[in-house]
Amino acid sequence: MKALPRIGVTLGDPGGIGPEIVARVFSGKTDLPAARYILFASRRFLEREETVLKKSLRLPGKGTSQGRGSQTLELREVPAPAGAGKRGVSTRSNGLASFRYFEGAVDEARRGDLEAVVTAPISKASWALAGLPWKGHTEYLSKFYPGAIMAFWSDPLKVALLSHHVSLKKALGKVTRKTLRDYFLALDRALAGTRLGRFEFAVSGLNPHAGEEGLLGREEIDEIIPAVEDAVRLGVRIKGPYPPDVVFRDAVGRKRVFVIALYHDQGLIPFKLTAFETGVNVSLGLPFVRTSVDHGTAFDIAGRGRANPRSLVEAIRLAAALALPAADSAG
Amino acid sequence: MKALPRIGVTLGDPGGIGPEIVARVFSGKTDLPAARYILFASRRFLEREETVLKKSLRLPGKGTSQGRGSQTLELREVPAPAGAGKRGVSTRSNGLASFRYFEGAVDEARRGDLEAVVTAPISKASWALAGLPWKGHTEYLSKFYPGAIMAFWSDPLKVALLSHHVSLKKALGKVTRKTLRDYFLALDRALAGTRLGRFEFAVSGLNPHAGEEGLLGREEIDEIIPAVEDAVRLGVRIKGPYPPDVVFRDAVGRKRVFVIALYHDQGLIPFKLTAFETGVNVSLGLPFVRTSVDHGTAFDIAGRGRANPRSLVEAIRLAAALALPAADSAG
Repeated sequence: MKALPRIGVTLGDPGGIGPEIVARVFSGKTDLPAARYILFASRRFLEREETVLKKSLRLPGKGTSQGRGSQTLELREVPAPAGAGKRGVSTRSNGLASFRYFEGAVDEARRGDLEAVVTAPISKASWALAGLPWKGHTEYLSKFYPGAIMAFWSDPLKVALLSHHVSLKKALGKVTRKTLRDYFLALDRALAGTRLGRFEFAVSGLNPHAGEEGLLGREEIDEIIPAVEDAVRLGVRIKGPYPPDVVFRDAVGRKRVFVIALYHDQGLIPFKLTAFETGVNVSLGLPFVRTSVDHGTAFDIAGRGRANPRSLVEAIRLAAALALPAADSAG
Repeated sequence: MKALPRIGVTLGDPGGIGPEIVARVFSGKTDLPAARYILFASRRFLEREETVLKKSLRLPGKGTSQGRGSQTLELREVPAPAGAGKRGVSTRSNGLASFRYFEGAVDEARRGDLEAVVTAPISKASWALAGLPWKGHTEYLSKFYPGAIMAFWSDPLKVALLSHHVSLKKALGKVTRKTLRDYFLALDRALAGTRLGRFEFAVSGLNPHAGEEGLLGREEIDEIIPAVEDAVRLGVRIKGPYPPDVVFRDAVGRKRVFVIALYHDQGLIPFKLTAFETGVNVSLGLPFVRTSVDHGTAFDIAGRGRANPRSLVEAIRLAAALALPAADSAG
């Protein structure tokens, strides 16, 4: 038997479009990669979507799996607090429910029982109402994996962020030779550990025209170029720094190139312009693959049967492309 | 007689593709707007391109103009230094020549004898070899017009830059309520003074997610929002700040919207991705219109007959669209 990766999929906030897109994707019409899929969800929210969509997931019973060809589907039932499920608003109980789905999937992945976790959208406001100390998925993962790398993946463009949710002023402070060198090595190693293997890297500069030989800023000369040279000596296939307004445009369509952005918007402005509908958020440098839809809960259309599952499908496909086969089923 | 704007066009660096694209555009096959065109050039460099392209500009003699319908073409002969004209490299004499073309056009425009100036590419290295104290066109213009605004124009996306050729660290220092308010007013007034009239403005935030209510940076709350409120009170049609990774994408295709970028690459990364071949650089806030091609001298293909004049055509079209008719020929 061909070894299949085990991919956990979380339901997201029960009040958003997460349950609908999960139900759509697993109701049989979508072409999904070969894998063992495990849904971290509450059955009643999935069944509610089956009614809206007039489609059946033919969910298996507890402890059994439902198979079709090279895919199997299991439900890992996670109880939701009483009162959860209200659509279209952030609530405490919805926040707790979506946290438990994610916590359950991460627990299994950390134990080595999942190769990948794919997350549907949560509401950060619901998590805050639930009193959770983490702003969202990424912050929770950072608890276990402080070196996790936030990257954005699409067929035409791939971007890794040196820093993400900090002010631009603070992000400037992370542009040091040591931080950069460690980051380049960690990113290279993280990709080498996936099924797709190593990539080439193009580093963006920080300043206009990549500093224009020091005239428009010194960070390229003092920090970035030395860090690139360090990484090259250590075997990383990396070039740059390139002018920020050129490096993203030039990378579009080069499938084995990752652009390294030095702050959140330097990477996300071009990514969202280039990969509007097919972008996937991926956390690298964890012992498992984690991908996520790149949209929010879309409270305004929750429960209407109008949500587009495309980003979730892309997130699942990327998880399957990156994940190594399950060790225990290899052979 | 319908009043026509007078548009000066400079030849650019004689060693680059400037002479070729100017010769192509004025050799009769290109559909240009109605205007009086005045070339600031040396006849011998134009005639050399006529040989390469096997096309004739039918250049008029000194002091006369050659007309065709609603367009007329004049040559303002500018002598080039001995030795100028070598192709494919930066040289002192080419730098002096391209500076004199530009200086001549700006002189006439400052006297009120041109409504617009369109510039072909110069070599900054040639200007430096010529000992000129200005890095390029923009810096020379800043001598007369320190409040000049650098903007980038295309059909799908228009972007104005709060700051341009300074380090990112210095650019952060310009994000103050007073600087922003003055800039918003100056930009609004500058566009109101063109033939296209006023635009709406969408301001980008500085920090990820526009600061997320202060969690990811305070500049939105302390500086940008108050400046927007000041400008709204003064009649400017302006909104924001919006998340930087959303505002450019959302503005694409909205023809009467200008996005205000708070630093060079915030604006130029999305602009160059969106308007790769048709982008025009425009200086606003001068008493005349100034547009420029958005490419360089392309030394590697100079003199080969392979240069694409599209950006120059777009720069000329935008100059004509913005320029008011010449006052002295109105009626």
